[in-house]
Amino acid sequence: MEDKAQIQEAIKSQGEVVRKLKSEKASKDQIDEEVAKLLELKAQLGGDDGKHQFVLKTAKGTRDYNPKQMAIREKVFNTIIGCFKRHGAETIDTPVFELKETLTGKYGEDSKLIYDLKDQGGELLSLRYDLTVPFARYLAMNKITNIKRYHIAKVYRRDNPAMTRGRYREFYQCDFDIAGQYDAMIPDAECLKIVHEILSELDLGDFRIKVNDRRILDGMFAVCGVPDDKFRTICSTVDKLDKMPWEDVKKEMVNEKGLSEEAADQIGEYVSMQGGMDLAERLLQDQKMCQSKLACAGLSDIKLLFSYLQLFQVTDKVRHAVVFDLSLARGLDYYTGIIYEAVLTQAGVAPVTAEAQNGAPGEESVSVGSVAGGGRYDGLVGMFDPKGRKVPCVGVSIGIERVFSIMEQKAEASAEKVRTTEVQVMVASAQKNLLEEKLKLITELWNAGIKAEVMYKKNPKLLSQLQHCEESGIPLVAILGEQELKDGVVKLRVVATREEKVGTHQRLSFCLLSSRSFSFYQVHFPPFSSQLKRITES
Amino acid sequence: MEDKAQIQEAIKSQGEVVRKLKSEKASKDQIDEEVAKLLELKAQLGGDDGKHQFVLKTAKGTRDYNPKQMAIREKVFNTIIGCFKRHGAETIDTPVFELKETLTGKYGEDSKLIYDLKDQGGELLSLRYDLTVPFARYLAMNKITNIKRYHIAKVYRRDNPAMTRGRYREFYQCDFDIAGQYDAMIPDAECLKIVHEILSELDLGDFRIKVNDRRILDGMFAVCGVPDDKFRTICSTVDKLDKMPWEDVKKEMVNEKGLSEEAADQIGEYVSMQGGMDLAERLLQDQKMCQSKLACAGLSDIKLLFSYLQLFQVTDKVRHAVVFDLSLARGLDYYTGIIYEAVLTQAGVAPVTAEAQNGAPGEESVSVGSVAGGGRYDGLVGMFDPKGRKVPCVGVSIGIERVFSIMEQKAEASAEKVRTTEVQVMVASAQKNLLEEKLKLITELWNAGIKAEVMYKKNPKLLSQLQHCEESGIPLVAILGEQELKDGVVKLRVVATREEKVGTHQRLSFCLLSSRSFSFYQVHFPPFSSQLKRITES
Repeated sequence: MEDKAQIQEAIKSQGEVVRKLKSEKASKDQIDEEVAKLLELKAQLGGDDGKHQFVLKTAKGTRDYNPKQMAIREKVFNTIIGCFKRHGAETIDTPVFELKETLTGKYGEDSKLIYDLKDQGGELLSLRYDLTVPFARYLAMNKITNIKRYHIAKVYRRDNPAMTRGRYREFYQCDFDIAGQYDAMIPDAECLKIVHEILSELDLGDFRIKVNDRRILDGMFAVCGVPDDKFRTICSTVDKLDKMPWEDVKKEMVNEKGLSEEAADQIGEYVSMQGGMDLAERLLQDQKMCQSKLACAGLSDIKLLFSYLQLFQVTDKVRHAVVFDLSLARGLDYYTGIIYEAVLTQAGVAPVTAEAQNGAPGEESVSVGSVAGGGRYDGLVGMFDPKGRKVPCVGVSIGIERVFSIMEQKAEASAEKVRTTEVQVMVASAQKNLLEEKLKLITELWNAGIKAEVMYKKNPKLLSQLQHCEESGIPLVAILGEQELKDGVVKLRVVATREEKVGTHQRLSFCLLSSRSFSFYQVHFPPFSSQLKRITES
Repeated sequence: MEDKAQIQEAIKSQGEVVRKLKSEKASKDQIDEEVAKLLELKAQLGGDDGKHQFVLKTAKGTRDYNPKQMAIREKVFNTIIGCFKRHGAETIDTPVFELKETLTGKYGEDSKLIYDLKDQGGELLSLRYDLTVPFARYLAMNKITNIKRYHIAKVYRRDNPAMTRGRYREFYQCDFDIAGQYDAMIPDAECLKIVHEILSELDLGDFRIKVNDRRILDGMFAVCGVPDDKFRTICSTVDKLDKMPWEDVKKEMVNEKGLSEEAADQIGEYVSMQGGMDLAERLLQDQKMCQSKLACAGLSDIKLLFSYLQLFQVTDKVRHAVVFDLSLARGLDYYTGIIYEAVLTQAGVAPVTAEAQNGAPGEESVSVGSVAGGGRYDGLVGMFDPKGRKVPCVGVSIGIERVFSIMEQKAEASAEKVRTTEVQVMVASAQKNLLEEKLKLITELWNAGIKAEVMYKKNPKLLSQLQHCEESGIPLVAILGEQELKDGVVKLRVVATREEKVGTHQRLSFCLLSSRSFSFYQVHFPPFSSQLKRITES
């Protein structure tokens, strides 16, 4: 045990570090990290009392979801999945880890962020980094050439977490993709329709969906005189336009990427353009742009896309606009056609959530306010097929962690209580020795499909039973007493208004069951009187 | 590249291995494993054509879920979650990996089956092995002393997979637990009520819920003369009674565990006993059993439990019996009170699924036919609390992978088609050039909340549109034609019966929306005539 003194020394100096950080009011993340180190040292020392020397924390960059967060998460999932199902999507699931080589060579520099499993004998495995590569692997492995599927699951990135800003190492992705050889722009337009429906339904405020096409970008680079081998690097510089002004972007192009000033200026003119179908038409007449067949193909498809979007009724909204924006580039290499990104534009929302962005949505870093992104990637599945057979794909990823943050903030700011259960009625009593009767009644309710609770005590106080209702938002209490039992009835009380009605057991379950609208009371506490009247008079 | 020849040599000999296994008709698992090795070697060799040298497979012991499996999975989850919610449970989620030390010392010998993450700098992490230890960590970390929660998530065990028999390395657990200091046996009884409700609703056939108590087992061992230090090892021998006859169990006790023959015979008498509340009463009068205070406490609680189960209406079922069974031991060390296990008893079901068991349910190995298990564990949370504060818990784990297998087999055996989408109506046309009109109509339907699909082709053949409906079980087609457009109507055809009705756009969406029962047509193909009449006449 000669280490012991050393460890004690280390604990002492680590304690200093923590104290110093606290006195300097360092960030919570930083302090937490150093505290964790301290606790680990203490754990190494072993228990002087011989037990309970655990470091009680979750792994760095991860978190538990508590019931309140889960209730919000469920609500968001239901909205999104409802939309995916409305559009006829199936769902699949893939394992949380893949063969390491399945992920190799798909993420460029970001590969260093992949979590590997320890070599415990057998295959070399890694935790999935996104859902797109496993999807492509699934299609190739099962020789599937047509599918419309969604997949909502957690992915893993050994990124530098900034949990206070909503960046985690374990986070959800929420992907919808259409794979198959189809007529141009029909599935692409449906993806945008879906983004539009989801963002509208989630009620996140005003948003704008920016649309562009990789072929237009590449064609534009060509006609502006960007050398072929600089397309990708110039593209990623353009991608920064939503975070920095044109002057800085131009500087990076010229000074860092070695582009001529003239070429940069020409690009600058194009990437300032925003519009709708009219802009696509104008650019199709543009003398310079016309020189690129690629750009023309892209522009024609943008026109077609907007005509479908019109039929889908998504272009005519003022607060939820779709904009053809030549500055939209998106980081990922694998896009081959249309690309898009949705951003929240409402002043009231953006600043609060500006920092709450994750690696999602999509797979690259996202712009401030971005809540969805995607595009067409016709080559990825072919990378997995032994014969290189291509399966054209277009998809969208909802930035669901971002959405969670916003919804959590909204819930926090609102006076409405988030319910974590859906219990409709509490079975209670004012008097003692009625446990048996309460259990009989709750059995009737459960058997009739009613969501009901009873306290796990023989003789709880009425007050504590009512308090439980108020705390967890249970709207109704069924109260049993000696008198009610004699009369063969149950007293039903509305917790919020304290109104009471009396009815028989059977009528109680019937009323509760037939009143479907109870599920709408999950979050609100409206006056129940009319509701009560209806259910007790039926 | 001097390795190349070596690798080619290895490929050659590995090829021999595979051929030999195939000629010997070895098990598919075995062949697959050797084929995987072969493919890996080939991948090492690198591509002579320079590309597509992936091994296209999922990690050993894992699988993708296809849309059909997902549809079944969703149905099972909905039933189970519905029951948990009916009983007022909240839900939480925890990360897929924990600090390695959080899992250390919780699983005894099985610790070798834990997946560790590679040390990439930072904390040492492991994939969760079950949901109970993370739950206990969560309670202690957040100082929660009262919660009723469910948690459905995947867990990871580096076990020897036998995928043909439903044993995977990545599989779901489905846990419901009640934590808190309450009056005896009320939450325990609710856990059994929940098992009863879920198994009944899932319609898995006859089942039996066996109940016992750790205190009764320990008391019984004491009065039969088992030395204190042999309680646990004799207990795990008793646990084998559902897999082997008493004679063999006795042999193991006497020959391997060194118990006296006399003690073993006394145990043998007790563990053959099965009954209900009457058996508990009889044993409370039993001269020998009475000597153990522990056993008496357990027996009194069994009596109380059965009285609550009677009120919950779960004891009076013939096909779904609850039985006090002194041979039920369950493997886990951490149980401190009541324990239970549900087994399927129907002759028709058991053999088919006998092999389809996983490590779940519960955390130990399970008996043939077991589909749920659990018990009271009052000490586990205290292991995580720095001050050792206890939080009494009782819970149940549904053997959901087992349930999936059974449901998949039932679906396979049945003539009914499993639908993988919920699409209510396909928007189709018999003539060309109607894409615009179809997109307009489907927009109306989507905006009205109807689940609808349209082919992603400008001019698909009517036959291929109808075929898609039949393949994916879409019950209705809305057909547009020149004549219908002139008349301002839509033709609605029932796919199964080919009946047709004509109505306006608006009436179509109204009818489809107001007809809630459409959701029930997900799996079945009933005659739609009456339905159609109702919706078109409204």
